[in-house]
Amino acid sequence: MASSPPSRDTAALRDRIQALLDRSGLMQHLGAKLGDVSSGRAHVHLPFSPALTQHLGLFHAGATSAIADAAGSFAAMTQAPDGHTVLSVEFKINLLAPAQGESLEAVGQVIRKGRTLTIVQVDVFALNAGRKTPIALMQQTIINVPERQP
Amino acid sequence: MASSPPSRDTAALRDRIQALLDRSGLMQHLGAKLGDVSSGRAHVHLPFSPALTQHLGLFHAGATSAIADAAGSFAAMTQAPDGHTVLSVEFKINLLAPAQGESLEAVGQVIRKGRTLTIVQVDVFALNAGRKTPIALMQQTIINVPERQP
Amino acid sequence: MASSPPSRDTAALRDRIQALLDRSGLMQHLGAKLGDVSSGRAHVHLPFSPALTQHLGLFHAGATSAIADAAGSFAAMTQAPDGHTVLSVEFKINLLAPAQGESLEAVGQVIRKGRTLTIVQVDVFALNAGRKTPIALMQQTIINVPERQP
Amino acid sequence: MASSPPSRDTAALRDRIQALLDRSGLMQHLGAKLGDVSSGRAHVHLPFSPALTQHLGLFHAGATSAIADAAGSFAAMTQAPDGHTVLSVEFKINLLAPAQGESLEAVGQVIRKGRTLTIVQVDVFALNAGRKTPIALMQQTIINVPERQP
Repeated sequence: MASSPPSRDTAALRDRIQALLDRSGLMQHLGAKLGDVSSGRAHVHLPFSPALTQHLGLFHAGATSAIADAAGSFAAMTQAPDGHTVLSVEFKINLLAPAQGESLEAVGQVIRKGRTLTIVQVDVFALNAGRKTPIALMQQTIINVPERQP
Repeated sequence: MASSPPSRDTAALRDRIQALLDRSGLMQHLGAKLGDVSSGRAHVHLPFSPALTQHLGLFHAGATSAIADAAGSFAAMTQAPDGHTVLSVEFKINLLAPAQGESLEAVGQVIRKGRTLTIVQVDVFALNAGRKTPIALMQQTIINVPERQP
Repeated sequence: MASSPPSRDTAALRDRIQALLDRSGLMQHLGAKLGDVSSGRAHVHLPFSPALTQHLGLFHAGATSAIADAAGSFAAMTQAPDGHTVLSVEFKINLLAPAQGESLEAVGQVIRKGRTLTIVQVDVFALNAGRKTPIALMQQTIINVPERQP
Repeated sequence: MASSPPSRDTAALRDRIQALLDRSGLMQHLGAKLGDVSSGRAHVHLPFSPALTQHLGLFHAGATSAIADAAGSFAAMTQAPDGHTVLSVEFKINLLAPAQGESLEAVGQVIRKGRTLTIVQVDVFALNAGRKTPIALMQQTIINVPERQP
């Protein structure tokens, strides 16, 4: 990942996903950043901020699930047909451990790509003093929808 | 709801939940507001802002699920034993329709209260030009945990 | 429900769903029976048998979810377009209380009917000495698929 | 797995889980068989039978989820404290592909072991003419409960 330059296609894929994130008001507002992107896979990072917490000062489950939903949607988007965008149909998330640390990382990965629906799995980790702990696990169903013309 | 003043208990319950929301950085950051609260039930409102959108300009599923998670947790909290707080174990949300309008309203309701776990259902509505449309449905599992002493 | 004869349409609907159940080897093998059927709604009954239990002698979660899945699919099928059948995309079930009694009753109800996907909610009750207790709650996503020609 | 005899502990674990399956009426009735068992992991096999089908002749989602629920519960049981048994709190299953073949295999694996709750992931495969295809993916929440004395 670090040693060779990304292929043209990977760069194009990344631009496509970065554009999605840039157009998402919520991702900007939360401070989410795009990480690695490849076909069927996308990483989203979320640095800690007091603006992301629940009542005990940990990352709020709403923040965790927002970036998990985004990472899953981006993973699906890397394989969506031309002229299509993606929408979340549903997701289920288990919160495995206290979400505490300098940042969260959500890794979305396509499990099954159908014509209409894509099934994605998302792992979320907390990064804390050099340790990476799994803090959430999501299963998500995504639908391809034709992009409306402007 | 509107005609008679809330009982002392309802007022105390509301204060307890309002304090939870006030201490949640994410709820403040998103602009969420507490609505009606009663035993086993809590409403959370989220006025529209460009800071809450996905790439098509609708409310982001992450915003929808954040207030749904909060409304469900608040509903469970109204029935949590003294000296306990609540944490989300997991939830599953179906996004039923485009989340579009002046605001969202999430209504959490306790379905089953056990000693350790509480099962909650949350309906989310979009309010648009006087119409109220269901846009999401959540099932959530909540755990009671002892509050740590300061 | 009991006082007036079902309309022609309701009878046709019921026949359509009964045919589905009759062609399901699993429903026969478990002893499931069709209850009331109307547009967007279907009931499935499951009389107790030692062949349906888990290790403590209660109804197995697998039996509960099998009839919940069936009731939800049947509810969706009542509104499927002509020439289409339905398949479960995914479901999530909370087991609310010990599933104990003379029979279970699963009640599937369409929450949102889209062109491709239907979202269904299913309540499951245990009937025990005249009492009806909620024992499970399901959210389910169903897809309409064209029926293959014979 | 094949080359060395199982350790005493693995054999004891397997006996404990086999006893659970033997006491489950539903698992017997469906024809489910225990496969490999190790700490945090359990396999359940389900040979095809017309008694396990839905209306199109494929394995019914109810059969798939019954063995997935069992494999997940067994995986959790391998790590349950002494004197405790396990119950499913909830699960969510995505049906990835038509469940077609000579048998199904469900592989449950503990993702997170807490004091009270265990989170499990279950993969289900169809075995068809020597090919193994993923057909379902489950996330499951399990609770440890004290075994009642006889």
